Amino acid sequence: MKQQLLDTVSINYDPRVELIGAASYFHAQGWMLGTAGNLSAKMPDGSFWITGSGKSKGKLSQEDFVRVYPDGSIQAPLEESVKPSAETSIHSSIYELFADAQACYHVHSVDANLVSNFIKGDEIPLPPLEMIKGLGIWEENPNCVMPLFDNHLKVPQIASDIKTRFLAQKPQIPALLIRNHGVTVWANSLETARNYIEITEFVFRYMVAARKAGI
Amino acid sequence: MKQQLLDTVSINYDPRVELIGAASYFHAQGWMLGTAGNLSAKMPDGSFWITGSGKSKGKLSQEDFVRVYPDGSIQAPLEESVKPSAETSIHSSIYELFADAQACYHVHSVDANLVSNFIKGDEIPLPPLEMIKGLGIWEENPNCVMPLFDNHLKVPQIASDIKTRFLAQKPQIPALLIRNHGVTVWANSLETARNYIEITEFVFRYMVAARKAGI
Amino acid sequence: MKQQLLDTVSINYDPRVELIGAASYFHAQGWMLGTAGNLSAKMPDGSFWITGSGKSKGKLSQEDFVRVYPDGSIQAPLEESVKPSAETSIHSSIYELFADAQACYHVHSVDANLVSNFIKGDEIPLPPLEMIKGLGIWEENPNCVMPLFDNHLKVPQIASDIKTRFLAQKPQIPALLIRNHGVTVWANSLETARNYIEITEFVFRYMVAARKAGI
Amino acid sequence: MKQQLLDTVSINYDPRVELIGAASYFHAQGWMLGTAGNLSAKMPDGSFWITGSGKSKGKLSQEDFVRVYPDGSIQAPLEESVKPSAETSIHSSIYELFADAQACYHVHSVDANLVSNFIKGDEIPLPPLEMIKGLGIWEENPNCVMPLFDNHLKVPQIASDIKTRFLAQKPQIPALLIRNHGVTVWANSLETARNYIEITEFVFRYMVAARKAGI
Repeated sequence: MKQQLLDTVSINYDPRVELIGAASYFHAQGWMLGTAGNLSAKMPDGSFWITGSGKSKGKLSQEDFVRVYPDGSIQAPLEESVKPSAETSIHSSIYELFADAQACYHVHSVDANLVSNFIKGDEIPLPPLEMIKGLGIWEENPNCVMPLFDNHLKVPQIASDIKTRFLAQKPQIPALLIRNHGVTVWANSLETARNYIEITEFVFRYMVAARKAGI
Repeated sequence: MKQQLLDTVSINYDPRVELIGAASYFHAQGWMLGTAGNLSAKMPDGSFWITGSGKSKGKLSQEDFVRVYPDGSIQAPLEESVKPSAETSIHSSIYELFADAQACYHVHSVDANLVSNFIKGDEIPLPPLEMIKGLGIWEENPNCVMPLFDNHLKVPQIASDIKTRFLAQKPQIPALLIRNHGVTVWANSLETARNYIEITEFVFRYMVAARKAGI
Repeated sequence: MKQQLLDTVSINYDPRVELIGAASYFHAQGWMLGTAGNLSAKMPDGSFWITGSGKSKGKLSQEDFVRVYPDGSIQAPLEESVKPSAETSIHSSIYELFADAQACYHVHSVDANLVSNFIKGDEIPLPPLEMIKGLGIWEENPNCVMPLFDNHLKVPQIASDIKTRFLAQKPQIPALLIRNHGVTVWANSLETARNYIEITEFVFRYMVAARKAGI
Repeated sequence: MKQQLLDTVSINYDPRVELIGAASYFHAQGWMLGTAGNLSAKMPDGSFWITGSGKSKGKLSQEDFVRVYPDGSIQAPLEESVKPSAETSIHSSIYELFADAQACYHVHSVDANLVSNFIKGDEIPLPPLEMIKGLGIWEENPNCVMPLFDNHLKVPQIASDIKTRFLAQKPQIPALLIRNHGVTVWANSLETARNYIEITEFVFRYMVAARKAGI
């Protein structure tokens, strides 16, 4: 039955090619080096495709993805040995929390790691740059913060922290930062998710350079 | 009548392909990330083509542009839903102020944002680099400033500030900086406008690094 | 006899094309500028292919490699004048020390050179970044160090220092740093060696930026 | 007579394609932005091809070069309007001073501009990096300096300063730096000149980062 659904949907929509392109681009920017980071896209039936664990992100192929269903079952259509990303639980939480999310991207950058160590608290203020508009904040000199979470070896603990905090209060922007780890964004299209990664990385780069320059 | 003009002119000259190439290049440099920035080129009839609002600048197509006429009317030839850039009023002001301008480019870089916060005044001194010659300043150790404008949520306010100041006094160089936002250049050809962007970004990068290095 | 072996093996496996691709990529990152750096890959018979001395690393061809045998003999199949990398002795030591190593990559980056001058000792602590997992360290906030060796004009002296220290104590991670020179990694596949270079360079970049930002 | 010579030589050797490739690569690195920088290559008859003045360096064609003869005469074969680089006199001086030089490359980088302001004197000490070997210095912890010249609006003044100083004392390395302007290298092949640019820019990048990091 699930197999039948998959076949029908595949004809109409397969986000893996676009995810491969995004991963290759993020890799070239230095944001998915080695096997770091993970990208996913939701399917009409509520499942999502996600990058497999331990795959080099600069050279993915369609066989390097796994499909994860709402009931937690997993399908690796072409290669049985592919395991879903170790951070699948974070993606699941994001899709549960934000019904409109169609894509969830997580990358590792030097600047995001640095910014995550600027403060000890659980949110980080963003500078009032014009670029912030690209995250949906249309205010003059916006007063905006990004949620910041501690890193844990056990990823489900991070996923649980995200769920608990966001159920209590939705974040201002579709992005969160994990300390010493990297940013996660979600959006209602793959193109917009890619733009959000570009914008958050721009803002991190500004924050790091501003701190170095004493601004 | 306007449609007829358009058809005739199109045969001879369509700057959109070159604008797409420039946007793709600026995007790759990190200066047009997400949907940031806007580029325009003037047509022989006094109208100009400008990038549409909310388009990802790394992957524009000809349908993503809008043509703006001197009377303020707008034409989106292939897709009705395309809106002109939110910053069209700045481009209009530049073409009004500088009759020779054939292109006007505006990009968002981390370095430009940083430099705009170096001082509180309304102009910023540039270092005496050889590169400044590329902006038309042929002096030994030139004493050159770039006009600096405050950012506003309402873009027509920025456009109005530019017009007022430049009508009172023309700037030394074909470039201006908007605080926390980015640089705008204008030139008598698309190639020269692209060179001006490269040169101003080089100078900003120098200024940021010099400040960090204590020079 | 050796020639016969070579012919048989060549049919099944020639790592030079992948090494050329890796060198071209590292060059584009600024890690193999000029003729700097050297890459090698082990063959089933215990010999290894290594980049020739004095070759521009951004544009290698298969003729620019030399094959080094366990007994120290050398074969430059297509061009007699090609000499093995001046740092061949380091690669030989690595393959002797680590029986599983199938590839050994050595590159020169600005960040690696900077980090090597952060301390005077013979090992350097790494920050507890998520990226460290990519080097095989699966701990929460890992306490990890990279071995650091002094540079010598006579490369066999460096190779000897490496052998002496690693025979006494194996390093935590498959990587070592030579002061004012660059990083060396080894792995059980060429793809993994490439990932290790990406990860160590990411970590160096973080360390340099963190120091500049006062973190 | 000169025309006849040109025809004969052209059949055998035309360095312009390789110069175009080098300029495109340097442009992509941010070292020949706008119309900045100039590259030349010597011909068997003692003349040299040099990039034309005011050309965008990221998109040169063979028509954008001028041939300069030892007697000072100039030939722009395909387009009369092309003028030789404003800095031709520096290239002429280099070829006069160094008989073995077959190529002379001059680029403008942010790091070179910064380094040129580290000291007020007329030479700058280089750090003892392994990369220095690539400039022909084979010493342990080499004690090496790069000649530094003041910039002048009148380029022949710079050329004259170079000649005077180098006739009195040859530099240790095939490179010189002009303050607020950029580096010039020369070599006995185009490939080696390209490598020298890569190496000097690597060293400048190190010097700037080391100063920022307090090393």
